[in-house]
Amino acid sequence: MNFKGKSIVSMNDFSREDIEHVFSVSESFGEIQRARLDILRNYILATLFFEPSTRTRLSFESAMQRLGGGVIGFADPSVARAGEAEPLEDTIRVVQNYADVIAMRHNEAEAAKKAADVSRVPILNGGDGPNEHPTQALLDLYTIKKEKGQIDGLKIALVGDLFHLRTLRSLAYGLCRFDVQLFLVSPPELRLNEDVMVPLKQSGVFYKELTDIREIIGQIDVLYTDYFPKGRFKDLSLYEKYKMEYRFNRDTLKGVKEDFIILHPMPRKDSVGYQIYPDVDSLHCARYFEQVLNGVRIRMALLAMVLGER
Amino acid sequence: MNFKGKSIVSMNDFSREDIEHVFSVSESFGEIQRARLDILRNYILATLFFEPSTRTRLSFESAMQRLGGGVIGFADPSVARAGEAEPLEDTIRVVQNYADVIAMRHNEAEAAKKAADVSRVPILNGGDGPNEHPTQALLDLYTIKKEKGQIDGLKIALVGDLFHLRTLRSLAYGLCRFDVQLFLVSPPELRLNEDVMVPLKQSGVFYKELTDIREIIGQIDVLYTDYFPKGRFKDLSLYEKYKMEYRFNRDTLKGVKEDFIILHPMPRKDSVGYQIYPDVDSLHCARYFEQVLNGVRIRMALLAMVLGER
Amino acid sequence: MNFKGKSIVSMNDFSREDIEHVFSVSESFGEIQRARLDILRNYILATLFFEPSTRTRLSFESAMQRLGGGVIGFADPSVARAGEAEPLEDTIRVVQNYADVIAMRHNEAEAAKKAADVSRVPILNGGDGPNEHPTQALLDLYTIKKEKGQIDGLKIALVGDLFHLRTLRSLAYGLCRFDVQLFLVSPPELRLNEDVMVPLKQSGVFYKELTDIREIIGQIDVLYTDYFPKGRFKDLSLYEKYKMEYRFNRDTLKGVKEDFIILHPMPRKDSVGYQIYPDVDSLHCARYFEQVLNGVRIRMALLAMVLGER
Repeated sequence: MNFKGKSIVSMNDFSREDIEHVFSVSESFGEIQRARLDILRNYILATLFFEPSTRTRLSFESAMQRLGGGVIGFADPSVARAGEAEPLEDTIRVVQNYADVIAMRHNEAEAAKKAADVSRVPILNGGDGPNEHPTQALLDLYTIKKEKGQIDGLKIALVGDLFHLRTLRSLAYGLCRFDVQLFLVSPPELRLNEDVMVPLKQSGVFYKELTDIREIIGQIDVLYTDYFPKGRFKDLSLYEKYKMEYRFNRDTLKGVKEDFIILHPMPRKDSVGYQIYPDVDSLHCARYFEQVLNGVRIRMALLAMVLGER
Repeated sequence: MNFKGKSIVSMNDFSREDIEHVFSVSESFGEIQRARLDILRNYILATLFFEPSTRTRLSFESAMQRLGGGVIGFADPSVARAGEAEPLEDTIRVVQNYADVIAMRHNEAEAAKKAADVSRVPILNGGDGPNEHPTQALLDLYTIKKEKGQIDGLKIALVGDLFHLRTLRSLAYGLCRFDVQLFLVSPPELRLNEDVMVPLKQSGVFYKELTDIREIIGQIDVLYTDYFPKGRFKDLSLYEKYKMEYRFNRDTLKGVKEDFIILHPMPRKDSVGYQIYPDVDSLHCARYFEQVLNGVRIRMALLAMVLGER
Repeated sequence: MNFKGKSIVSMNDFSREDIEHVFSVSESFGEIQRARLDILRNYILATLFFEPSTRTRLSFESAMQRLGGGVIGFADPSVARAGEAEPLEDTIRVVQNYADVIAMRHNEAEAAKKAADVSRVPILNGGDGPNEHPTQALLDLYTIKKEKGQIDGLKIALVGDLFHLRTLRSLAYGLCRFDVQLFLVSPPELRLNEDVMVPLKQSGVFYKELTDIREIIGQIDVLYTDYFPKGRFKDLSLYEKYKMEYRFNRDTLKGVKEDFIILHPMPRKDSVGYQIYPDVDSLHCARYFEQVLNGVRIRMALLAMVLGER
């Protein structure tokens, strides 16, 4: 697709060619630290974070400034709360007059789509409730490609709460576009929902749903996991039942393939403890901090593309 | 007046010539979206929001960045609360060392004047309690002029809580400078206060105070309304009595003149409901989203003028 | 030391030559208000304020923008609270991918060192609990030098809670490098701790610990004071006992030397009242607002130096 003027709402909107185009624009920027390009100097990004997020917000703001653009926005739900009564659509109709592109996070599923439907400037979905997080999925795919050379041919495990987690859901949409073997590892009650399963099945990609990561830990090339999001569970007893599952340390990672990598969108510690323990950090397989820098690069590409400057 | 180095505290300080000068500087910037000028690149704006405000703050910050300037500040009363014990005057005496111009919002009437009295950099009043909101009034006047061709000769209704609302009060000060007919529509207990009525009477402008908007809805050219600010009512029973008044939809706007317009500083929905219902949005008369972009333009002009660059 | 790539964690790491080098870089920028240099245009500063601070944060952000750099960050502990479970080390390992230098404030002693130990970008300590505030100490020393011509030979009183206050502790470290006479004025229970007393004794600088400021008020050249930080007292009865001590007005400053100056890191009013009353402001000795502008200058120098651009 031609990205100019487009919103980035769902990973399911991306063809394989789209994904690869984002990668190639990302690569084109060269070294991005201690550097500034001026290709977006005429533009302002608004970051509207109805839910707090240090990482995603700072990543977008860093990307925009690396390209010479300006940034406005709010970081804090308390500021948004002041206009609580205002419908999201009105906020967007207002802010599109202050900025040329909007990156937003919201606690409601489909919020990004709702925003995009009324906006005349591109909306970048920085996470909408339990729904999607497409810019994260793009940086995850990019990290896999960069670390493993290519995505095709890999055995990839998505591990954890596949029902509630937008990161895992968006990544599943993205991986459908490649010739991979997917292992969907989750508690039986927290499997990937129909809306992702349908395109997954249609894609013809091999997949297997299972519960015990130990069954496949020795054969996979990539393991991707994320936290159990307590706030999204309607039935807290379900959360309590599984919250300690799928936590990785040197012991649980014994027997992995030599060039295996483990990824995580961060933070990798929640109120219950580490999902990936610090004793993993110094292993070659630990690539979760590399993801972060790749995130800036991917968001630079997306900003430039939707603004028509790449 | 020569705006260089001046604070913008009250709309009552503006002559007709001043207002028209702001308009003409605003016009001079050309297209402001997807654009950046560099005329304020040597300057920093501090936005000090002791009360949260997404709209006004983002508008100032967008304006400053469109002109190439830098922005620092706080958006959130919780940050300000940290220095709760610090008198406003001290905060200003400190921040004037970090920035070249200060835009502020405060919950106390006269806070902007108090700040301007000690500041060596210009203060732009972004709303001080129930007192004034002059930059909003300027953008309102500008919108009226742009939409109607000229302000002189118009019949304009200011509708709602004329006692507590700084937007309505500042706009009344501004409209006195033109040859208009003013309809001041409010509950009897919430009429325009003496401090605005005195200059209004002195100006010789025709005005009429009334309670029922239906009496004049068919003859007016412009209707301007805003919410009932619960937090400013000493007597909450008065708020409860009137909070549902003056709400507009297609029905209540039946019979308006063909080129009638309705304005609102936004948000147009409060905790009780819409003041202007979404079914109005697609009518020609709905100009409240146009106001927003005009706001950036007006604030660009004011920033450039008080910094001596226009 | 060569500052390029270095973190600024403790004032105790600065030799006299280092301090003077910071001063001379600070001087080299010329007029800093209404001005922008572009020497840091390729860099981004992250301000991570786990504890709110208007002054220090805005000072860093102003300094960075005066030098043409970009700024990202969080101002508010509520945003940080969202990632409460994340260890500081992880936050730093993430943010170093978004920014080229990090200025941080934290409520824990040694937090800055902990951050610097894992960071590949320089960390600037903007206050870590009761431990240190080296950039403040540098601006304090710079202000003394600028106001008095030189630091050597002066009689300087540090007044207040020498046990809990990072500003007083860092300044004591810094003053050891000069040929001064130090008067350490505090309640007996709140004297300077061993970690500062040891280098102070080793330095050979004359010092005297006392409780009553009146004993020496007529002979000192510089008086530096700060508030009693209630939140850091384990024994609140100790706080209650002393909270009203060492407050200065025209009366208590009677009999000072003609060229005496009084400094304060601001705010000079806490929930109990003024430490320095407004009736002092118009006296020649009041130099606490001058400190603020010097703070921007010093932080400009530090940013440029650790980034290798000065």
